[in-house]
Amino acid sequence: MEPIGLQPIGVVRSALTTTGQAPKQGPEAGLVSVIEIAPAWRQGLTGLAPGRDLWVIYHFHQAEATALLAHPRHDPARALTGVFNTRSPKRPAHLGLTLVRLLQVEEGRLTVRGLEALDGTPVLDIKPYVPGLDQPAPLEEP
Amino acid sequence: MEPIGLQPIGVVRSALTTTGQAPKQGPEAGLVSVIEIAPAWRQGLTGLAPGRDLWVIYHFHQAEATALLAHPRHDPARALTGVFNTRSPKRPAHLGLTLVRLLQVEEGRLTVRGLEALDGTPVLDIKPYVPGLDQPAPLEEP
Repeated sequence: MEPIGLQPIGVVRSALTTTGQAPKQGPEAGLVSVIEIAPAWRQGLTGLAPGRDLWVIYHFHQAEATALLAHPRHDPARALTGVFNTRSPKRPAHLGLTLVRLLQVEEGRLTVRGLEALDGTPVLDIKPYVPGLDQPAPLEEP
Repeated sequence: MEPIGLQPIGVVRSALTTTGQAPKQGPEAGLVSVIEIAPAWRQGLTGLAPGRDLWVIYHFHQAEATALLAHPRHDPARALTGVFNTRSPKRPAHLGLTLVRLLQVEEGRLTVRGLEALDGTPVLDIKPYVPGLDQPAPLEEP
C-alpha cells in the first residue's frame, strides 16, 4: 500500500530532546510541554479551555525502523509480542497517541501535561476526550 | 508544514459504503466490521486475542476539505466550535480514532465491533487500550 500524505498541524516544544531521555509513559511522569499550532489552523482551537482532556496524535519522527515484534513497555523481561499489541514507537506508520490534560491555551500554544513526545515532534491531530466514545464497552457475558 | 507520508497497514471492510450511511458514533451503533491487515505487517498482530479493546487510527479517505469550525456531533442545533474540539472528519490530517472491541482474529483479519469507518478506509495503526494511559488523570483541586 502506498504511503498517505497527512498534514501536520503543529509541533511539540519540550525539554526532551533525545529518545534516551523520554519517559516510558508520559501520564505517569506528568511532564509539561507545549504544542505550537501553526497559524493556519489556530481557528480550530476555538472552544478549548484549560482542564480539558485531549488526545494528541503525533509522528515519532526520530523512531527507528519498524520492528514487528516488541517487548511490552520496553521491558526485556517481558516476552516479545506483536507491535500492534504494544505502544512501541517502532510501528509502520510511526504514530503516537497520548491523552493529555490541557493546562493553558494562548495564541495557538497549548500547554499540556502528560505528553512524552520529543522536542520538534510533528503533531497531526488533537481531539477531545469523549467518555462515551473513549471508554471500553462493558465486558460481555461468556 | 509539509505533509508527512505514513504507511497504511490495512483496510476496513464494512457494509458502510457512503458517508450518508455512517452512524454518528460507532460504539453506540455497535457495528461489526473487518480490518484486513496487509501480509507484510501481520506478524505485528501476534498476541492479540478476542476480547481486547483496541484503538484504530485510520484515514477519512472520503472526507471533504477541512473545516476549522464544526457543529459538535454534526448537530446543527449545537453552536459551532473549533474542529479540534470535535471529532469531525473534516480535520487537517483527516485522522479518525475509534476504540473497538476485538471479536475475532484470523489470518490477518480482525473482526471488530464499534468501528464506523467506510468500506475501503485505509487503516494506519492499531494500538492496545491501556487503562493506565488511556483514562484521564483525576481532576485537580481548584
